[in-house]
Amino acid sequence: MHVSNHLLVDTLSGKPTNRTPVWLMRQAGRVLPEYRKVRETAGSFKTMVTRPELACEVTLQPVDILGVDAAIIFSDILVVPEAMGLRYEMEENKGPVFPHTVRSANDLAKLHVASADQLHYVMEAIRLARRELNGRVPLIGFAGAPWTIFAYMIEGTGSKTFSRARKMLYNEPHLAHQLLDMITQSTINYLNGQVAAGAEVIQLFDSWAGILGPDQYHAFSLPYIHKICREIAPVPTIVFAKGAFFARRELNNLPCDGIGLDWTMDSRESRRIIPDKVLQGNLDPCALYASAGDIRRETTRMLDAFGPERYIANLGHGLYPDTEVDSVKCFVDTVKSYREKVPRE
Amino acid sequence: MHVSNHLLVDTLSGKPTNRTPVWLMRQAGRVLPEYRKVRETAGSFKTMVTRPELACEVTLQPVDILGVDAAIIFSDILVVPEAMGLRYEMEENKGPVFPHTVRSANDLAKLHVASADQLHYVMEAIRLARRELNGRVPLIGFAGAPWTIFAYMIEGTGSKTFSRARKMLYNEPHLAHQLLDMITQSTINYLNGQVAAGAEVIQLFDSWAGILGPDQYHAFSLPYIHKICREIAPVPTIVFAKGAFFARRELNNLPCDGIGLDWTMDSRESRRIIPDKVLQGNLDPCALYASAGDIRRETTRMLDAFGPERYIANLGHGLYPDTEVDSVKCFVDTVKSYREKVPRE
Repeated sequence: MHVSNHLLVDTLSGKPTNRTPVWLMRQAGRVLPEYRKVRETAGSFKTMVTRPELACEVTLQPVDILGVDAAIIFSDILVVPEAMGLRYEMEENKGPVFPHTVRSANDLAKLHVASADQLHYVMEAIRLARRELNGRVPLIGFAGAPWTIFAYMIEGTGSKTFSRARKMLYNEPHLAHQLLDMITQSTINYLNGQVAAGAEVIQLFDSWAGILGPDQYHAFSLPYIHKICREIAPVPTIVFAKGAFFARRELNNLPCDGIGLDWTMDSRESRRIIPDKVLQGNLDPCALYASAGDIRRETTRMLDAFGPERYIANLGHGLYPDTEVDSVKCFVDTVKSYREKVPRE
Repeated sequence: MHVSNHLLVDTLSGKPTNRTPVWLMRQAGRVLPEYRKVRETAGSFKTMVTRPELACEVTLQPVDILGVDAAIIFSDILVVPEAMGLRYEMEENKGPVFPHTVRSANDLAKLHVASADQLHYVMEAIRLARRELNGRVPLIGFAGAPWTIFAYMIEGTGSKTFSRARKMLYNEPHLAHQLLDMITQSTINYLNGQVAAGAEVIQLFDSWAGILGPDQYHAFSLPYIHKICREIAPVPTIVFAKGAFFARRELNNLPCDGIGLDWTMDSRESRRIIPDKVLQGNLDPCALYASAGDIRRETTRMLDAFGPERYIANLGHGLYPDTEVDSVKCFVDTVKSYREKVPRE
């Protein structure tokens, strides 16, 4: 016996709901002991990503354990550049490393636009997860935004400045646009595949938005996000552009439904600058290190500030892996018990 | 024979000048072959910091080679925590590493408020540099802002999230304030020593401002910056709070003279939010990877946008080490030849 939970989809579609939906970025992850057990058995992060039954298992864990209002398919944004021809490894305590990077037209010529078929293991994980979820909560699919994927493909690894990637925007803008075009087309193929496989909501992660200045973000990121939002199959779509405070007016004009906010962005100011979108966010993930009483207080302050309408409760960044499970539950439960709104239909 | 250049001090003091002053964060650094030669002879970064004649030598290099309107003493913000009792090493390609960090009241009890005497080598470098500069351009002294120093002392090294440091703000705020107080008092002692030794302008670097949310920045960073600005000897003071777009209204109310902007902050919007301060910045350091023509165009656009009054030309972050010297010169020369203003007195 289960009750279907349409809170997230209804909120993104502008329909009235009787409370605010809640999920957490990185909810399927190291914060859960059940995840760490699967991870240990799998042996590596990439094994979990590429084996649909494992990806499905950890996708469902937070629904059962934390009681969130959505599942997000367990995967990694870097499967797209890999499918384009740039293999990567996930190194413990270091993050992703690409043995080869793109620095020239010659490097670019070795890549191709990825098809959804190449990422069949993600599609299979989505199909499995939809079947297992059996309508309990919606399933979110996702991809990295082209600028963020580009940054990794040029830099080869995480970086404080991504100065090599940004350098290309200044000294080889034509080459940069060529690669961004290829990533964009690959991402459209990939996300359309996800929707066909059963993803009911899509989130785009522009994790490195905040290291570009406003003009460069306007030139090298937003047009590609715009194209993806326009060309993917019509499911509710959320864009999370971390650090792009300077682009909030432009984010308001994207053909998408929701905008994710990081924890540096003031809720009331963001409402004013982004009046036309559902907002999602934005508790500082470090707030979950506080006592239960403080977590309840901070979460309630956040809910008060955003107001009950057109809002999805979440963190302002992914869960940090050493957060206590009880603290995450406290966050989720505070949102769920916050206010029993009177249904309007 | 030399001409004294008062452009920077006059601009910060609100006096009319006949052109915009220009200097660059990290102008004394790896971008100059002359610096790399001294660095090689010294053997380590910390040797350069602690030997006054070497620090003095590299402080003067950009004045002679690049023609900037100010020198900034060559040093490191982490000499303050070291003087407080927390030794660090500068590791090649990794950055600073503290073998011991502060995680408890017990760790805190081992530290003390630093005196200026403990950092005598910086004072000596300042005295030497003033003598060598002989009035050609003013000498800038500097320190890290307390939150940024705190972040390194807790985390022990650079970090993408500084989540351990931010965690302490949530779960041990009292301990955090105690340490921030000690850093603040050490910094006041240190900067007063710098001014006594001859520093003519002070810049505070809050390099990790942007990883705090607005409420936490208000609670854990701004009051300490405010106290430093109020309690140091009266020389023109600039505060550079990287990433703190959300705090610009509060930065406008600090008892300082200039506010540094990073490259994500729009110049005209920042003028509106920070009407009472001289602004400094903010070209993307990656713009210096472009062609000379593009550097001139981007620099001119920046100068047009900030306008000629109450403005100091600079980058929005430190120079990246692989920038071409000619590109840095192109930036400096573009500012210097931009506009011959008619002197108003």
